[in-house]
Amino acid sequence: MKSCEIETRWWGWGDVKKTYDVEEVPAYVEYLKKRLELEIDCLRIPDPDMGKLELRPVRLSKKTIGKFEKIVGKENLSTDKKARLYHALGKSYRDILRARMGQVPNPPDVVVFPANEKEISEILGVAEEERVSVVPFCGGSSVVGGVEPLEKEEFSGSLTVDLRRMDRLIFADAQSMRARFEAGIWGPELEKRLSKHGLYLGHGPESFLFSGLGGWIASRGAGRQSTGYGKIEDMTEALRIVTPRGTIDTLDVPASAAGPDLVQLICGSEGTLGIITEATMKVRPLPEVYDYQGLLFKEFSAGVESVREMLQKGVVPELVRISDPEESTLGMYLRKPSSNPVKEKATVSALKGLEKFGFSFETGSYAVVGCEGKAREAHSRMRKALSICVKNGAIPLGASAGREWYDHRYDNPYLRDIMYGWGVMTDTLETATTWDNMTRIHERVGKAISDALLDYGSKSIVTCHLSHSYRTGSSLYFIFLGKIAKGKEIEQWEHLKEKAGDEILSCGATISHHHGIGYEHVTWFEKQYGEQGLSALRSVKNIFDPAGMMNPGKLGL
Amino acid sequence: MKSCEIETRWWGWGDVKKTYDVEEVPAYVEYLKKRLELEIDCLRIPDPDMGKLELRPVRLSKKTIGKFEKIVGKENLSTDKKARLYHALGKSYRDILRARMGQVPNPPDVVVFPANEKEISEILGVAEEERVSVVPFCGGSSVVGGVEPLEKEEFSGSLTVDLRRMDRLIFADAQSMRARFEAGIWGPELEKRLSKHGLYLGHGPESFLFSGLGGWIASRGAGRQSTGYGKIEDMTEALRIVTPRGTIDTLDVPASAAGPDLVQLICGSEGTLGIITEATMKVRPLPEVYDYQGLLFKEFSAGVESVREMLQKGVVPELVRISDPEESTLGMYLRKPSSNPVKEKATVSALKGLEKFGFSFETGSYAVVGCEGKAREAHSRMRKALSICVKNGAIPLGASAGREWYDHRYDNPYLRDIMYGWGVMTDTLETATTWDNMTRIHERVGKAISDALLDYGSKSIVTCHLSHSYRTGSSLYFIFLGKIAKGKEIEQWEHLKEKAGDEILSCGATISHHHGIGYEHVTWFEKQYGEQGLSALRSVKNIFDPAGMMNPGKLGL
Repeated sequence: MKSCEIETRWWGWGDVKKTYDVEEVPAYVEYLKKRLELEIDCLRIPDPDMGKLELRPVRLSKKTIGKFEKIVGKENLSTDKKARLYHALGKSYRDILRARMGQVPNPPDVVVFPANEKEISEILGVAEEERVSVVPFCGGSSVVGGVEPLEKEEFSGSLTVDLRRMDRLIFADAQSMRARFEAGIWGPELEKRLSKHGLYLGHGPESFLFSGLGGWIASRGAGRQSTGYGKIEDMTEALRIVTPRGTIDTLDVPASAAGPDLVQLICGSEGTLGIITEATMKVRPLPEVYDYQGLLFKEFSAGVESVREMLQKGVVPELVRISDPEESTLGMYLRKPSSNPVKEKATVSALKGLEKFGFSFETGSYAVVGCEGKAREAHSRMRKALSICVKNGAIPLGASAGREWYDHRYDNPYLRDIMYGWGVMTDTLETATTWDNMTRIHERVGKAISDALLDYGSKSIVTCHLSHSYRTGSSLYFIFLGKIAKGKEIEQWEHLKEKAGDEILSCGATISHHHGIGYEHVTWFEKQYGEQGLSALRSVKNIFDPAGMMNPGKLGL
Repeated sequence: MKSCEIETRWWGWGDVKKTYDVEEVPAYVEYLKKRLELEIDCLRIPDPDMGKLELRPVRLSKKTIGKFEKIVGKENLSTDKKARLYHALGKSYRDILRARMGQVPNPPDVVVFPANEKEISEILGVAEEERVSVVPFCGGSSVVGGVEPLEKEEFSGSLTVDLRRMDRLIFADAQSMRARFEAGIWGPELEKRLSKHGLYLGHGPESFLFSGLGGWIASRGAGRQSTGYGKIEDMTEALRIVTPRGTIDTLDVPASAAGPDLVQLICGSEGTLGIITEATMKVRPLPEVYDYQGLLFKEFSAGVESVREMLQKGVVPELVRISDPEESTLGMYLRKPSSNPVKEKATVSALKGLEKFGFSFETGSYAVVGCEGKAREAHSRMRKALSICVKNGAIPLGASAGREWYDHRYDNPYLRDIMYGWGVMTDTLETATTWDNMTRIHERVGKAISDALLDYGSKSIVTCHLSHSYRTGSSLYFIFLGKIAKGKEIEQWEHLKEKAGDEILSCGATISHHHGIGYEHVTWFEKQYGEQGLSALRSVKNIFDPAGMMNPGKLGL
């Protein structure tokens, strides 16, 4: 079964058959209760009932819908409730909140599943004729409101173009280490098809199982292993985008001095210029090993310094992730006790032993380093990376600690959705800055988040890790938890986003390193991009999409 | 003395006090005579006489000039013949031809040397008011016509803005490995100032001694060591550009998902949008060693294969340069015999010894590998790189062969200018493509060049090397020599460019990997960039420069 055929939650994350085993982490539940001063009566509340939800009626006429149907065929167009609901929201905390509360204001009127670029061109033609706004849709995992059709007066309705049928591998060229795909292919299928050629892309965002190539590129995403493999815009060698005013097909060459780079104009355009239909990706040989190791630093700063040293010395692991003490602690509470009591006892006593030497998850910094590739080369790189960490005072916790992270790297979004039932607000935000600015951002943005939660009467847990690093700086990823302000849920979230976003910008960092802008980040995007940058963007938008129908409202366009 | 204070040739390359010692390479002269079937009567013809050259009178009124003078001060504005002549042409073969033949049709009317961004803004304001076109100018080393003011009816005259006074190091941040400069700084001063902080940029194009930061960025240039350090667009973390309609100042962060990348919109804009005034560059620690080694392959293909293997295995030297047999032969003829007869005899006999084992410069492939950095790390990388070469059949020629290339890496442009006097047409062109396309480009573009020379009755020497390589492909750099078609000099060159450019595009490669477009490459740029790409570019141009006064004609804008 293809990953896009898995039945997923319309009101939350992932596979309906999967969940997070919160029953197995009672210590975590107790910890939250204590830290956030809340009561948790029951671990799981019932799923929201789709039946109870009333969606806005389809606004497009039968005649208009018929025109789209003629292009894609009856079986590839849907106006039913389920399809519309699945395409109505992304997966941000705010989206989950609203789905849970039955607030789904902007479902698309129609969802189409085109088979090829020709159909896409025709769809855009009809949409423009009929004044229908168009949202390109891959996996729909945006956490910034990137796929929600926004209501705009000038449109008679909205159409979501779901690309999942366009998932061909067009070519794999092992000689030049590149492969071209249709943009609708999702993560698991992409890697599976590459692996048959002994190749590997290595773009593994947390959404990997439920997201796809076109979405990654449109939003300038980053995989977990971007420190080694680069962000998606670094992996994209060439692409093709269909706009309402024709197609851009960039030349597939490794580098060029022929004018401004069109690929980088389209990466991050978030569907506002057109629909990305194909891309040539720079690929790697399929790794022989995925070597992941855990470590513990006495201090976060020593961890940060180790990452900087690695990157600047050219010792570049695919992944290096350094958690601050708050996150390290949280991770420890999320540890599932071993079912083998002897093993569990040994683990507990080892942890106590570590504490005697000053290594504590509560005050220290948990780190994961991952090296992928040919066995010999990856292990040698790992040795160098670990030795830098050890030099900076870390103690290696071994492969099982690293493996633990690796094996569960797609699980956390399931936990988030359950915590909603506990009255816990939990969301993430991320930024990037240069090394000299790292401590300042960590402290000030962290404080802005906890202050904002306090403003709504909530204690907080605010954690941070570095997970995508560069010679000149790194991303900082914040996860925060507080108590949901009942009756003011959205307001509370908006308040926090405002305070955190303002702080990020006032510290000179970017409003997003890899989540994108959508409509949730527009305020800060506009400030950061500047008057002239926005003028340029608007002028390009106007050339390709004079009707303004492509994903309106996103990037503020 | 700053490099921009050195007196340079207005009709050719470089320092007037320097030349190429052609007298010491008689074998080269004989070789050319034989291969190109030409007579060389005298090794050096007299320099063209500036006195004899009549420049078009200054077209701007005193009043207009007075307005510019008021901004920059009397001593920072020039309308004299010498200053206008120095800013009238770039350094392409066609420029040298024309200078030699006294054809300097488009000198700027005025040259200004602003001290800061405020002055630049004011200059642009007056220029727009007075309908004066503006050419931004750094070192003026463009080989594609990038700095020549083009005549356009709608303008009353042209102004060149020479940035050499804006050469400050704004900050050096060793913690984040970045440094910010004003854009008018030239290569030698940039590295000198960085070196005081123990830092290094590593952008060393052939023009390094006579070119500067703003020009490098505007034209998407590449240094010789770009395989390791990246092209200039990879090194540029943030920049500032003053346009006639305001300033863009991009955020200085290592990566961002906040919309399309503005830096990559400006890299390659060639002065058509505005004047780049500052840039933050990603820098490296000042290398301890510059380890360069020479090698000889039996076949060019084995050399190409070695580069691909290195890059794809992650063994990345700062420089790896593989010459085809024609270039390897030419290099051998350019070798200066040692003044020590014993040493020379030893070299000659060593070369003969090599031939016995099938290693010949005439049929083989000469290669240079360079690794820079901390001694231990660079040497270890060099060992790995060499072992890949040896595995593919190369014989190492040692450090003296590598050093020979390194020490003379800025010399060849001097030779070009002398060869003009021999009636030799010599020029270069370059492209980039993916590995699977390498042989095809090498053969077909090479043939297009020699055919084009034959069309004008000339035998040819057409050489090629790979010098900027990537995991997915490489640049190919062609140097060619033929007989100048007397009386049809420009026509002959245009014919060749047309044939070569058409062949490059028909093979799916880029019209330029690092020289840029200027106006010499516009025809192919437009085809390659495509209708939609051009529309986007024109719309952005129109926003920033509605009068169309910024470097008109370049990029076809």
